[in-house]
Amino acid sequence: MNKKQDFKIETAGSLMKDEYVSVTKDVTIEEAVVILRENVKDKHNIYYMYIVDDFKELVGVLTIRELLAADGEAKIADVMVENIVTIPVDEDQEEVASVFRDTDLVSMPVTNEDKQILGVIHVEDILDVMQLEATEDFHKMASMGTTPADFSEMGLMNASIGLLYRKRIVWLVVLVFMNIFSGAGIAYFEDIIASNVALVFFLPLLIDSGGNAGSQSATLVIRAMTIGDVKIKDWFKMFTKEISVSALMGFTMAAAVSVMGIIRGGLDIAVVVALTMTIIVIIGSLIGMSLPFVFDKLKLDPATASGPLITSIADIVGVLIYFSIASWYLSL
Amino acid sequence: MNKKQDFKIETAGSLMKDEYVSVTKDVTIEEAVVILRENVKDKHNIYYMYIVDDFKELVGVLTIRELLAADGEAKIADVMVENIVTIPVDEDQEEVASVFRDTDLVSMPVTNEDKQILGVIHVEDILDVMQLEATEDFHKMASMGTTPADFSEMGLMNASIGLLYRKRIVWLVVLVFMNIFSGAGIAYFEDIIASNVALVFFLPLLIDSGGNAGSQSATLVIRAMTIGDVKIKDWFKMFTKEISVSALMGFTMAAAVSVMGIIRGGLDIAVVVALTMTIIVIIGSLIGMSLPFVFDKLKLDPATASGPLITSIADIVGVLIYFSIASWYLSL
Repeated sequence: MNKKQDFKIETAGSLMKDEYVSVTKDVTIEEAVVILRENVKDKHNIYYMYIVDDFKELVGVLTIRELLAADGEAKIADVMVENIVTIPVDEDQEEVASVFRDTDLVSMPVTNEDKQILGVIHVEDILDVMQLEATEDFHKMASMGTTPADFSEMGLMNASIGLLYRKRIVWLVVLVFMNIFSGAGIAYFEDIIASNVALVFFLPLLIDSGGNAGSQSATLVIRAMTIGDVKIKDWFKMFTKEISVSALMGFTMAAAVSVMGIIRGGLDIAVVVALTMTIIVIIGSLIGMSLPFVFDKLKLDPATASGPLITSIADIVGVLIYFSIASWYLSL
Repeated sequence: MNKKQDFKIETAGSLMKDEYVSVTKDVTIEEAVVILRENVKDKHNIYYMYIVDDFKELVGVLTIRELLAADGEAKIADVMVENIVTIPVDEDQEEVASVFRDTDLVSMPVTNEDKQILGVIHVEDILDVMQLEATEDFHKMASMGTTPADFSEMGLMNASIGLLYRKRIVWLVVLVFMNIFSGAGIAYFEDIIASNVALVFFLPLLIDSGGNAGSQSATLVIRAMTIGDVKIKDWFKMFTKEISVSALMGFTMAAAVSVMGIIRGGLDIAVVVALTMTIIVIIGSLIGMSLPFVFDKLKLDPATASGPLITSIADIVGVLIYFSIASWYLSL
């Protein structure tokens, strides 16, 4: 990937190359072929011939295939395709990748505000962009910072201990402090726990299940948003569907856990655990599903709704639900 | 993406198209250009001219650029490039994408065992493959099944409730049963918990921290394996580095949690919690880092080492470490 110092990183400008051939629109096909043959030698990949007017404004395009197949005597202006997909020079590289995926083109011209061609972006370089962007999302979704400037170029094998520490520690400490709330929740229910220690057996299982279901929902939504399959307006439709899916999952998991509940804690504990499981899975799923929408609305990256973040939120909610149900049911 | 029924899905054979032009090696450049011009009209994207011998075996290649730039009188056998990257027809599509990334080619020939050309794969279709493979990995890493046949084509918006349920429930139930072990661990330490209920306040925080650090490690390794940055032989190097990184993280998080420990549980509890935090973060990280290697060694997808799976393992290990340290320290 070539980087140009004069364009912002991660924009079309930083991805483009000057490997293109352009001709003015008043030449013939035969003349254009001659110009092409004179100019291709020092260029790596040429797939299109761009046609410009006297102000260097991009007015048409021909694939090399179309150029070669056309009648040599014809004026290029008469055979050129005028409907051109162009990329503004300051477009974000993730958006550029998305345009390439949607259009199936192998090369696209980058233009300035005056529609003048500045360079071209080749699809090969988009493969690198897609890989980089996917890696950033994977890291974000495991609560790690994205430090593309140093990490992505050296890779995991060569990353220093200090760099890895800095990349990982910030969210870990934030999550420690978030967990103060689940600790406070447990402290609030100290009495019921002291008189029913068997409740603690099921604590990791229940809060984990909420977090697991929530992480699944968040991952589905984040990925669908990245691909462009889900938009912010789809929240309500997703929400109603998630209620059904999570209720089915909650019932299944409640059935699984109630067997364990009877064996380890007796019938009363089993009822509390099964009821809690159902509610935790539904609420965890709805939180996980909604959080990427919230982040998107706040102009933050939806991928910030990481598994560990959702696990911590599900912990707090789970503790409150579990011991509230236990306090209520066991005092009946 | 065109799919051919006669080739296995997700292989080179299912991705290839017959959009290519080939000539025999005894023609001249000028003759080859004529053949190209006659044949390009009905083909979508032509970037290379392939050269075959009398047995249709692929022996050389020329880019269209090289073809046009070459002397028209020359024999094609004298100017062609003989060093060709070819893709076996049964190659997995993820591997094909990786070859495209490494070579920066826009099109590659697919060959059978006799080196005969069967078709070509264009880089535009690789963009779709990369997106699909990344989505599969995201889903796996959130403990969801991959059902490309139905899910990936319809997308999240159109996926039915039943399909989403089936995609998500299997791992959720597996993890419920795995959590029997953390419950059993807690039950084993029932007495120490009953006499020190304050220990429970820190339980979610401690086991989550191990899971969070482990999820980070696993994500880093899985992604690096996918990209090809880390190989199975690198385990020991990664392991020794992970010890340092996780120890630094453990000390930092122990410092953060010890403040809370003193406030909520007194000095003794604070010591137990800080010591546990350090050990849990180190062990969680080492498990998370190693598990993708284990799965890879077992010929399973490293991405199976999902955040939820590592969280559950970290729970079991965390419960044992926490209450063992508590039993030992508080009885001193």
